[in-house]
Order: sequence, then C-alpha cells, then structure tokens
Amino acid sequence: MSAFAELQRVMNTAADLSAAAAVLGWDQETYMPEGSVQGRADQMGTLSSVIHEAMTGPRTAEIAERVRGEMNQYPHRQQGISRAFLRDYDMSKKLPADHVEDMARTAAMAQDAWKRARAASDFSIFQPLLQHIVDLKRREADLLGPTEHPYDALLDQFEPGLTVKGLAPVFEELRAGTVELIGQIGQVQDRVSDAVLYRTYPTAEQQSVATSIISRLGFDLNTGRVDLSAHPFCTNFGNRDVRLTTRIRQNDLRSCLFGLIHEAGHGMYEQGISDDLNRTSAGGGASMGIHESQSLFWENVVARSEEFWTWAFPILRDRFPEQLAGETVRSFYCAINSMRPSLNRVESDELTYNLHIILRFEIERDLIDGTLSVADIPEVWNEKMRTSLGVVPPNDAEGCLQDVHWSFGGIGYFPSYTLGKLYAAMEWNAMQVAIPTVRQQIASGKFDEILAWLRTNIHSCGRTETPDEIIRRVCSRPLTAGDFLAYVGAKARDVYGF
Amino acid sequence: MSAFAELQRVMNTAADLSAAAAVLGWDQETYMPEGSVQGRADQMGTLSSVIHEAMTGPRTAEIAERVRGEMNQYPHRQQGISRAFLRDYDMSKKLPADHVEDMARTAAMAQDAWKRARAASDFSIFQPLLQHIVDLKRREADLLGPTEHPYDALLDQFEPGLTVKGLAPVFEELRAGTVELIGQIGQVQDRVSDAVLYRTYPTAEQQSVATSIISRLGFDLNTGRVDLSAHPFCTNFGNRDVRLTTRIRQNDLRSCLFGLIHEAGHGMYEQGISDDLNRTSAGGGASMGIHESQSLFWENVVARSEEFWTWAFPILRDRFPEQLAGETVRSFYCAINSMRPSLNRVESDELTYNLHIILRFEIERDLIDGTLSVADIPEVWNEKMRTSLGVVPPNDAEGCLQDVHWSFGGIGYFPSYTLGKLYAAMEWNAMQVAIPTVRQQIASGKFDEILAWLRTNIHSCGRTETPDEIIRRVCSRPLTAGDFLAYVGAKARDVYGF
Repeated sequence: MSAFAELQRVMNTAADLSAAAAVLGWDQETYMPEGSVQGRADQMGTLSSVIHEAMTGPRTAEIAERVRGEMNQYPHRQQGISRAFLRDYDMSKKLPADHVEDMARTAAMAQDAWKRARAASDFSIFQPLLQHIVDLKRREADLLGPTEHPYDALLDQFEPGLTVKGLAPVFEELRAGTVELIGQIGQVQDRVSDAVLYRTYPTAEQQSVATSIISRLGFDLNTGRVDLSAHPFCTNFGNRDVRLTTRIRQNDLRSCLFGLIHEAGHGMYEQGISDDLNRTSAGGGASMGIHESQSLFWENVVARSEEFWTWAFPILRDRFPEQLAGETVRSFYCAINSMRPSLNRVESDELTYNLHIILRFEIERDLIDGTLSVADIPEVWNEKMRTSLGVVPPNDAEGCLQDVHWSFGGIGYFPSYTLGKLYAAMEWNAMQVAIPTVRQQIASGKFDEILAWLRTNIHSCGRTETPDEIIRRVCSRPLTAGDFLAYVGAKARDVYGF
Repeated sequence: MSAFAELQRVMNTAADLSAAAAVLGWDQETYMPEGSVQGRADQMGTLSSVIHEAMTGPRTAEIAERVRGEMNQYPHRQQGISRAFLRDYDMSKKLPADHVEDMARTAAMAQDAWKRARAASDFSIFQPLLQHIVDLKRREADLLGPTEHPYDALLDQFEPGLTVKGLAPVFEELRAGTVELIGQIGQVQDRVSDAVLYRTYPTAEQQSVATSIISRLGFDLNTGRVDLSAHPFCTNFGNRDVRLTTRIRQNDLRSCLFGLIHEAGHGMYEQGISDDLNRTSAGGGASMGIHESQSLFWENVVARSEEFWTWAFPILRDRFPEQLAGETVRSFYCAINSMRPSLNRVESDELTYNLHIILRFEIERDLIDGTLSVADIPEVWNEKMRTSLGVVPPNDAEGCLQDVHWSFGGIGYFPSYTLGKLYAAMEWNAMQVAIPTVRQQIASGKFDEILAWLRTNIHSCGRTETPDEIIRRVCSRPLTAGDFLAYVGAKARDVYGF
C-alpha cells in the first residue's frame, strides 16, 4: 500500500490543529476580552508545539521518508500534495519544538503589546517583545540556513525561492520607475482632488455597502463572515470557513471599502481551493505573493478601474447621496486613484505603496543581519520615510507601529505585497487575452467569469504548484516589474492627464 | 524529584488543548458561518483525539502511576490536584481514542442538526444523529462500567458518585413535596399575575441592563464577555477568559435577564477558581451539580428575592418606564415568582422546574438501559409532560427539541440542575448563618461579601475537593431535598398568601 493514505491522516491532523490555532488567532483579534491575553498565549504556545510534534514525530518521519522515496510514482495531484507536505516537513524538522512554542507564545503576547503601543503611540511598550521576536527570527534564519543572506531564509518561508539577491534588481527597476512617475505626477498634483473620500460616511452604512459589494464579487457569506479588528486580515479554517475583518473610519471611505475588497480577494482564493486539497498540506495559497496577487487584483485592478465604478458608483451614490452629490464616475475614479506620497502603507496609493514595502524590506534585512538594532527602528523609519517618500510621521503610531506584521513574527512577509502587485499586473494582462470582454463585464457588474478564470488558473491548485510554476503557466513568463510599471504608468497618465 | 512537576506539564498541555476546543465550541455557537459545520466537526474530532492522546499516552501513563504511588506524601493542595487528574486519567483510559473522536465529531454535526430541527420543529431531522449519540453513550456506559445501572456511569461523569439508586429517594421526596405545593398553589393560582413580564421590551435595552446587573453582581467583563446564541451557555478557557451567551426575547423579560444572571453565576465560579489551579486538572468546577448551585444561587436565591428587587427594581423601571408603570417591588417580585406548570424548562419557575428534570432523567435512564427507543422520544415526552405537569407541547420545538444538551452528548447532565437547586438552598442556609446581614446587603445592591464568601468556600478550591466534601464542609451535612422544599415552600406561601 502507498504511504500516501497514511500521509493523509498526518496532514489531516496537522491541518485541523492549525485550523484550531487560526480560530484562536481570529478570536484574539476580534472578540477576546482584554484581560485574557496570557491564557491565549499559553494556548497558542501549546497548540504550536503539538502541531510541531504532529509534523515531525517519529511516525511522521517514517511516513515522510517513504513518501519521498515513492512519490515519483504517484499521480500528478498526489505529487503536488506530497511536495507541499515535504516542504513543510523539512522546514519543521529544522526548527526545534521549544523555538516554535516560544515564537507562538511571544507572538500572542506581542500582538497585545503592539496594540497597546499603537494606542499610546509609544514604541517602548512594544520594543522588548519586538526585540525578542527579532532574536527568535535571527535564530530561525540560522536554523533554516545556511543561505547567502540570513534574511533569505525568512523570505523563503513566505515566497519559496525568494532571496535578497534575486529581489534587488526587481526592486531597483521598480524604485526607479516609481520615482520617475512620482516626479511627473508632482508637477500636476493639483489636477486631482480626493477630498470626496474624507467626507462623513456613517460606519454601519460603509460596512453594509462594502459587504454587499464583496458578496457580488463572489465572496461566499454562507462559508465566510466579516468582523471588525484593529488591523484588517483574512484567516481561514479550511476552504469552507473564511473570516475577513475590516476597520471602518467615519471620515475615510477607503479604509473599509477597499480594505474589505482586498481581504475578500484573499478570501475568494481560499474559498476557491479544491475540496480534495482541504485538510492537506496543499490546502492553502501557493505563497504570500500569489495570495497578495489575488487581494490586490480585486482591490486595485478591478475595484480601482473606471469600468468598476461605471457599475458601482450608482450603488454607492444611492447609499451616500449627500456625500457624493456633484461627483461623477470619472471624478470618483480619479479621486480613488490619486497618487501622492503619504505616511500609511495600507492607505497609500498603488504607486507609492511599493516604496513603503522597500523601506520595510530594508529595515527587516538589516535587523536580521544585525546591522540595525531594534531600538533604532523609529529613527531609521522616519529617516527612510523622509528620503524615500518625502514625508515624516509625527509619531510612532503613524510610523513604525502602523503594521501588525512584526507583532506576529511575520518578518519576511512585506515583500509579498509588492510581488503581489507585480503578479496581479501580469495576471491582468493574461486575463485580458483570455477574456476579451473582461472590461465590459466589469462595467456591467459581472464578475463570475473573472472569478471562474482565477479559480481554474490559480485558486484550485492550492499549493500543489510553486509560485514560479503558476506564474509561468498562467502568464507565460517569469516575474517582472515591467507589466506593473506599464499598468500603473498608464493609469497615472489617464488620471493626471500627462 | 517528585513526579508532580512532570504532571504539571501534562496537565498544562491537556488544559490548553481543552481550552482551544472550548474556543471552537463557543465560536460554533456564536459566530461560525452556517456552511462551515463539516470542517468544524473535523477540527473538534481531531482535537479531542489529540487531547485523549495527551491524557493517556505512554509517557502520561508512566507519570500517572508515579503520582498515584507517591501522592500521599504531597502537600494537601497537590493531592487535590493529583486526585482530579487521576479521575480524568482513569476515565480517559477506559475510552478508546476512536470513541472519543467519534463522539466529538458527532456532537459538532448534531448541534447543527438540532438547530435545524428546532427551527423546523421536526424531530426527524435530529433523530439519526441523536440515535448515533445514544448508541455512543450506551457504548460509553459499557466501557466505563460495570455499574449497577448503566446510566450510573454517565451520571458519574457529571456528578462523581451519583447513581440511579442514590438519586431515586431524593427525587421521590422532591416530587412529592413539589406536587403537594403545586396543588396548594393551584387553588389560588389567580392571586398572582405575571403579565408584566410579557410586555414589549426592546432587545438592546434588555441586553444592556442585564449586562450591567451581572457586572454589579461581580462578573468581570475585563476577563469575560456576553454574546448571543440559540441556547444560553457559559464556557471558559482558563479562569481569565469566561464567555456567557444569552438569548433575548422582545416579549419575555425573563429570557435574557434571568438567563444571563444564571450564566454569570457559572461565570463567576470559573473566574473565582484560584490561579494556582489554572491549566491543571483541578482548574474547573467541582461538578456540574456544584456549578449549577452557583448559577441557580444567583439566579433564584439572590435575583428572585424581594430584597434584590428592592435594589434593582428602580434601575429596571428607569430603563422601561412605560412597561413597568404601575408596578411595585412587591408586584414585580410576585410576578417573577409565579409558579405554574409550563412547557419550557429554562423558563419554568423554581418549583415546577424539577419536574422537567425528573422527566428528562427518566427518559435518559430508559434510553441508556434500552427500554426506550430514540424514535419514541417525542411521544413519551409529550405523555410524561401530560401526566407530570398537565401540559402538552404543541410541537417538538417546544417539546423534546427545546434543550441543546443531547446534541452535544450531555446525557447524564440534567440531574445536575436539580442537584444545583438543592445545593443552592443548603448553601443559602449556611450563608445566612455566616453573614447575618446578607438580606440587607442584597437589598442595598451590595454583593461583594456574598461573592467573597462563595469564592472562599466554594470557588477557590476548584476540583481539589469532591462535591460531597464541599457540601459537607460548607453546609455541615450531606445532600438533602429538605432545605430546598422549605425554601421554595416559604416563597410559595409568601407569594401566593396561603
């Protein structure tokens, strides 16, 4: 008998326990009482240790080696699943249980500290726990290595095969193109006003209209839901329980609307993963970069297009007739695509966004190779903001405390966002060839063919293929910054008229 | 070195995993999307199997036997913890992993089926899963036995040492006293009207006032919260994360108000368990009967007393001035203590409530010993309602589908409610001796001394003592129905004036 049947049991156990941990994580960010953080940290630590044991114990090791030896004879799909498992297995084997447990427990505590630090705009509240996280991540890079640069080991966890060296030329091309466009826009900056976005929009109405839009896009609310949290995220427990969160700002229409469409892009990816991959190591997104390509595809390519608002603007105006009085599809489209350097990554535009990522990439790289100390983050952050984007945060809450990622140990994650942008532009070019009427479909609020194309080409294979394999198969070439620069350049010229 | 330190690690792991399972259970009843039940069932099944393994694996077995051999030399507190662990361990050893996993998975599915069955008032939707649960429970009784009556093994899980034989005389005394009082009240039934309870009370206001009352009683909202669910419950993940749920009916003031005070009674018990017992086998209530004594103490002894409403009625009238116009403390007190046979256990009065329990006790006993088949439950339920309470449910939703307990496999649980009533009356007599001004304190909305007494005498010891030890220590004698019959008789005579 093939070892694959036994592997299924191992993967089922690990997937179920990981799903349980994800439920606890979701609960912590949404409903958990404030005074309960210590207990949750203990529970997360224990769960991660049990998952680690399930993935690396002697029985699993025996099955893993049998699978490794015989998988060449498996059917194609089982090969993909086995490969995903072995990637996780080999990585888990390198990380001792005490390290994994310490990381999980620290993350639960750090998320609480980060929240308090951000509320008080006081980096020192977060600093000791961030120091512990950086120490753990440096140890982790060491355990996973050797790699050419220690940060490579962390990048690889989110985007298999990604390295500092491989990323450098792509980021340089992107930075140069971005800086050039920012310069051109700077000369005609006042041609576009985004004032409409900052009028007063009642929060309940915002959530209601955003939820109805994501439902129309294809997010299934029968196997998903929407809640509030300090930092928006998407999590899932299998492909039939997908949770999105959003935050709503009364005086900023973007936060809930585009934030929720973004998270729904993640959510539709998870909902689109084939049932046969559920509860296996391949039952998830292929990488964080591919995941972000889905969220950014819906948020930017679709929902920041003029066609989209041809359909959606009347709906929005029905909900907010006073706030949108005098606005047109065109003026609203320009407003949501205004491009200008700003402080906040999540709320920045498509163009300047990538400079926020490059800044984080550099800080993380230097933290991990030891050339930057945690205590110096606020100062370095502000200095890099000044030289890169020309703006300086007035406080840490709006500066280096704005993102949740470090608090859960997600060092190496940020570059995925920019990869997602680059992949999304490439996918969009492929989709326009495959579905010649795609722009007209968007303009009439028809999204089923788009979703079906993403399901067939990207979602359904889960982690059975690598990001590189998916992108080459779907877009007929490897990663490039060119498609994105062409896409964003065309939009900038359209919106600003230069 | 003593094995106790190693036992601590085993208990910590088991407690953390059980807490994780409880979070998933809470989520399923409150926020989980409708279409996600299969995945949740898988997760619960896997978690229970992992917990079972943690409690019974070879390493645990070795530690357990070392603890059993040396625990006589442990300090008193460690002995109590070890005893609680060994009780769980010995019970777990008797139940094979496949049984436990099947039970957990079936329970997750059955809770969904029960909800749908109740909504449709169609027992047949629930019947196949209930049949599976009864089969599993009969097998469980067999595995845990031998006992004189197979149902004894299930009773013992909720109330250590409780048997059909031991319960019979207590229930007979209680039934006789209850029937006599019902007869006396029946002759003057129209002296009390409870119409005030069924006026229109907006749900948000109901939840708000009930939440502020439980906070005043001493339920800590910094380590607890309140949500909505189909059937009210209290669950907890350690002593610092205690979740209550309630249901609110616009035209029934009792459901949310007394329901939430009831659940807060459970919650304050869990919040009062000593920190040193957290994450051990003794970190929970001593038994379901003792647990119910706490919820019923607050719900009935405190919150259905005339003294309580001397303090609380003005608060309630401020919130609902129109609905309570013309009512007095006395008339309101009489209304909430009206006693009359009715269909619904949760909403029945203190007196007739126990007849609902005796009915369920008899049905469960007969299901387990095989003299009653699942298919016959609706008919037998209705017949017993007719002979025992003189009322017959118009449909299954108001009859045999009204309770959640069977759907999660809680067969043997119901008698705990009546034990709780009997214990609560005994505790109240002991408290009145210990705190002579207790009635005046309640009348002035002062509950801290009451809670402190319960903490010291009952909560803080967790499961380090048995229910029988606790009751004998606190009340200076063993279980009796006498205190309760005297208490409820005095109230009936006061309210109905006979």
